[in-house]
Amino acid sequence: MSGPAPSGRPGQPDVLVIGGGVIGLAIAWRAAQRGLRVTVADPAPAAGATHAAAGMLSPVAEAAYAERELFGLGRASLDRYPAFTAELTGLTGLPTGFAPTGTLQVAYDAGDLAVLVEQHRLQESFGRAATRLTARECRAAEPMLDPAVRGGLLAAGDGSVDPRLLAAALLAAAEQAGVHLVRQPAAEIIMGAGPAGAPAAAGAVLADGRTVAARWVVLAAGWQSAAIGGLPPGTAPPVRPVKGQILRLRPRPGAGTALLTRTVRGLVRGSSVYLVPRADGEIVVGATQEELGSDTTVTAGGVWELLRDARLLVPGITELELAEAVAGLRPGTPDNAPVLGPAALPGLVLATGHFRGGVLLAPVTAEVIAEYLATERLPELARPFTVARFRDEDEGRT
Amino acid sequence: MSGPAPSGRPGQPDVLVIGGGVIGLAIAWRAAQRGLRVTVADPAPAAGATHAAAGMLSPVAEAAYAERELFGLGRASLDRYPAFTAELTGLTGLPTGFAPTGTLQVAYDAGDLAVLVEQHRLQESFGRAATRLTARECRAAEPMLDPAVRGGLLAAGDGSVDPRLLAAALLAAAEQAGVHLVRQPAAEIIMGAGPAGAPAAAGAVLADGRTVAARWVVLAAGWQSAAIGGLPPGTAPPVRPVKGQILRLRPRPGAGTALLTRTVRGLVRGSSVYLVPRADGEIVVGATQEELGSDTTVTAGGVWELLRDARLLVPGITELELAEAVAGLRPGTPDNAPVLGPAALPGLVLATGHFRGGVLLAPVTAEVIAEYLATERLPELARPFTVARFRDEDEGRT
Repeated sequence: MSGPAPSGRPGQPDVLVIGGGVIGLAIAWRAAQRGLRVTVADPAPAAGATHAAAGMLSPVAEAAYAERELFGLGRASLDRYPAFTAELTGLTGLPTGFAPTGTLQVAYDAGDLAVLVEQHRLQESFGRAATRLTARECRAAEPMLDPAVRGGLLAAGDGSVDPRLLAAALLAAAEQAGVHLVRQPAAEIIMGAGPAGAPAAAGAVLADGRTVAARWVVLAAGWQSAAIGGLPPGTAPPVRPVKGQILRLRPRPGAGTALLTRTVRGLVRGSSVYLVPRADGEIVVGATQEELGSDTTVTAGGVWELLRDARLLVPGITELELAEAVAGLRPGTPDNAPVLGPAALPGLVLATGHFRGGVLLAPVTAEVIAEYLATERLPELARPFTVARFRDEDEGRT
Repeated sequence: MSGPAPSGRPGQPDVLVIGGGVIGLAIAWRAAQRGLRVTVADPAPAAGATHAAAGMLSPVAEAAYAERELFGLGRASLDRYPAFTAELTGLTGLPTGFAPTGTLQVAYDAGDLAVLVEQHRLQESFGRAATRLTARECRAAEPMLDPAVRGGLLAAGDGSVDPRLLAAALLAAAEQAGVHLVRQPAAEIIMGAGPAGAPAAAGAVLADGRTVAARWVVLAAGWQSAAIGGLPPGTAPPVRPVKGQILRLRPRPGAGTALLTRTVRGLVRGSSVYLVPRADGEIVVGATQEELGSDTTVTAGGVWELLRDARLLVPGITELELAEAVAGLRPGTPDNAPVLGPAALPGLVLATGHFRGGVLLAPVTAEVIAEYLATERLPELARPFTVARFRDEDEGRT
């Protein structure tokens, strides 16, 4: 353990994690496993971006959106997924829906295929390219694909997980490991004196007025991490909400085999859509990307776009039940990469800004943050992702 | 009152109405107003086709689907709507959402316009034609229409009502008038001796085992009217379920003016869609027509078709919240017209098979059935709609 809690009161945690989505829960679990006393504050754990996440684990298919460092972080997290989910299930008996079944990227028309070929070149430059498939090979891999599909890329090592199951397993594992969950939002960071006497984060006041003092405050509240009170100017992480609408489609009772065996990500006339199948035949279709502040309205236009693109790729989805349409708010950052590690304010640790990759990046995020909390050293893998990169940029500009 | 109840027990109703949708509730109310003691049996009043109805009152716009007699019945019911809803609101203080704002039929492409011109000729042959509008006039009437719209027909006398509000007002008015509601499905018609000693319907056994004896049994259970137990062979009405999916779209808080001022019915590349606006800005979009038995699944394909057509007509709907998607089962008949009046079995009265027109036809149905219950004479207006028309057909064929 890195140090005593500021007040030294018995029962006071070493770590207060603000936010109980997959990121906050995974950190809390891993930190508790390292002997730290951890409290998580969240009014409704796993009800934010986690609730609306599809659970794709596709760093290769995401490569087009990532810098090399982020691609590496995603690969590192994917590599951890089999052991991470096996450990969770072994400890709790709960499933996570982890399925290492690969991702098939497909192109609907000639223009889409040209984009896909570009993405393949980028994957090659990262040294982890997917396999080019012809149209015929795509349909052999996924027979329910529309005959119009022009070709694709198979990332055999990618996979998926059910974020709602994962969050439930993480919560159970965290509680088993001694993590204390307080179902309250954190209203304000409280300040104390840090190791060198400088101002430092020392806990938080919750919405019900209770104070939780802690040696470390981990801000893992997704897009709301920027809005917490009490932070000195310039120390809040640069995250903003990016709305995503998704659909859950379910087979009707007595329906035959599942429509898809692996995640299908499509480019359809320039528009992106993905279909993530679950073992029970459910298919999650996502996702819009909208910059509308904190709005989480499910809109006619969002649902229409998702259905339009999904049915062009897999016409059979029209027979499925539209069981749910839901919108979540992903924490976006200026460079679409997460913010990991110590903040400028001593005592404050950031684990937010995961944008579209929170589920994928949960294992590696938990590992590096728990390591930092226990040792005050941030592992090499996470160093490109500290908040300092934005300050450096600002300074470079002025 | 037409006759004593079979058992003469005090508290026993004169009339048992099976089914508490808009049809059953309106009949019960009108019958009670005529001094009859009425019980309605329904496990969940207004939860069937009424719940998924949009509430269009457009006999003129529906003319293409109707024989002359059904058009006349629809006109007669529409004529009653202002007084019917005013009386309901006067008695109960409850709104019905009745809006005599007209219906605008529009055509999206040249082929659609040709169909609309044909429909206009048919309306003319019925003597109640809508007014032809140019494309420009359509947009002047409803500025949010897509510029592609080719032309339309304005039925200024048509209107709409909110079926859920209407049902709530009918239920309150019925109960005020002394109607007794039993929240149980009727399992089986019970038989007794009719006026001439012949077998006659004499009440029903409910699902909880209770028996409700009554002089008259009114079967107003929509598509389920065909499935009730205990009826002698050949006496069940020929109704089948026709699934319809609808959407409710809502403006977001702070949104500007409503998108539409009146019902818009569109033909869009051969596909039919309607948009019914409510005073609060909500728009109901409907409806699929599917012959899938009793299935009420909301499907990806159904929602997609409705959104596709609705947004081609009124692009602004994409910004609305998709607040609800729901499917109901309309009671279809072999000729798409309702079945009204005495059944072949004495004591049994039919009020079902209203298909797409249950809300429109509720006032006139209630009036003619109440008249029959009180006098044993079926008004002229309803005579083309007795179940005998199907028996005559069968006999004609053999």
